[in-house]
Amino acid sequence: MNISYIEHIGIAVKDLNKAIEYYEQVLGLKCYAIEEVKDQKVKTAFFQVGQTKIELLESTADEGPVARFIEKKGEGIHHMAFAVKDINGALSEAEKKGVQLIDKQPRNGAEGLNIAFLHPKSTFGVLTEFCEHPEK
Amino acid sequence: MNISYIEHIGIAVKDLNKAIEYYEQVLGLKCYAIEEVKDQKVKTAFFQVGQTKIELLESTADEGPVARFIEKKGEGIHHMAFAVKDINGALSEAEKKGVQLIDKQPRNGAEGLNIAFLHPKSTFGVLTEFCEHPEK
Repeated sequence: MNISYIEHIGIAVKDLNKAIEYYEQVLGLKCYAIEEVKDQKVKTAFFQVGQTKIELLESTADEGPVARFIEKKGEGIHHMAFAVKDINGALSEAEKKGVQLIDKQPRNGAEGLNIAFLHPKSTFGVLTEFCEHPEK
Repeated sequence: MNISYIEHIGIAVKDLNKAIEYYEQVLGLKCYAIEEVKDQKVKTAFFQVGQTKIELLESTADEGPVARFIEKKGEGIHHMAFAVKDINGALSEAEKKGVQLIDKQPRNGAEGLNIAFLHPKSTFGVLTEFCEHPEK
């Protein structure tokens, strides 16, 4: 498997605007995009921090995965995403090595990436995402 | 505040050796150091992933902060650490802007860094660390 860097850290928040204010006003980071990902029932806000993005996630539905996460664990870090060169190959290798996949096939994520999630039961509690830039 | 990149992601695990095996054998990352940080009652394993490190954390004491985290929330991402140029300035700015500090003064962390934590109550649920490389 060829993981090149941490593409982003996903953080579940209750109120996107209040969280953006904290990341901008206190930490001095700059929100460069806000995007709704209907498939995942979230509104996201992006910040570039060196090589890695912070992706704040606010649920757009009471039964969405981010809403359920906050209900169970509270606000906080929701997932970690690795940039991979060949997402199909990475998924196939992970599955062959015993990892339970949430997505057997990549789907469309924010910013036009091909994405897929591994189940946290197989990854020591970390909801883990693979991301592939389609143009690379 | 001058945050330059995400220095590391701290991940709480129950069994460091089993988790290292997953990160090496499945994800293909390389554990380059194992270090005990007595102050925080943890044994840590480090992996470099692009600009950012993954720091696996196993508690060395039943009452340690990582043991308590796992008891409450299960294994998973424990904290996010930002590299800052001037940790005293960053702490002072955060406090001035209403953030509750866990460490008012930096202390010694793994790999010889000066570190300090912000309280997750003030940071939308994310235990947030500042790290300063003393030589820079």
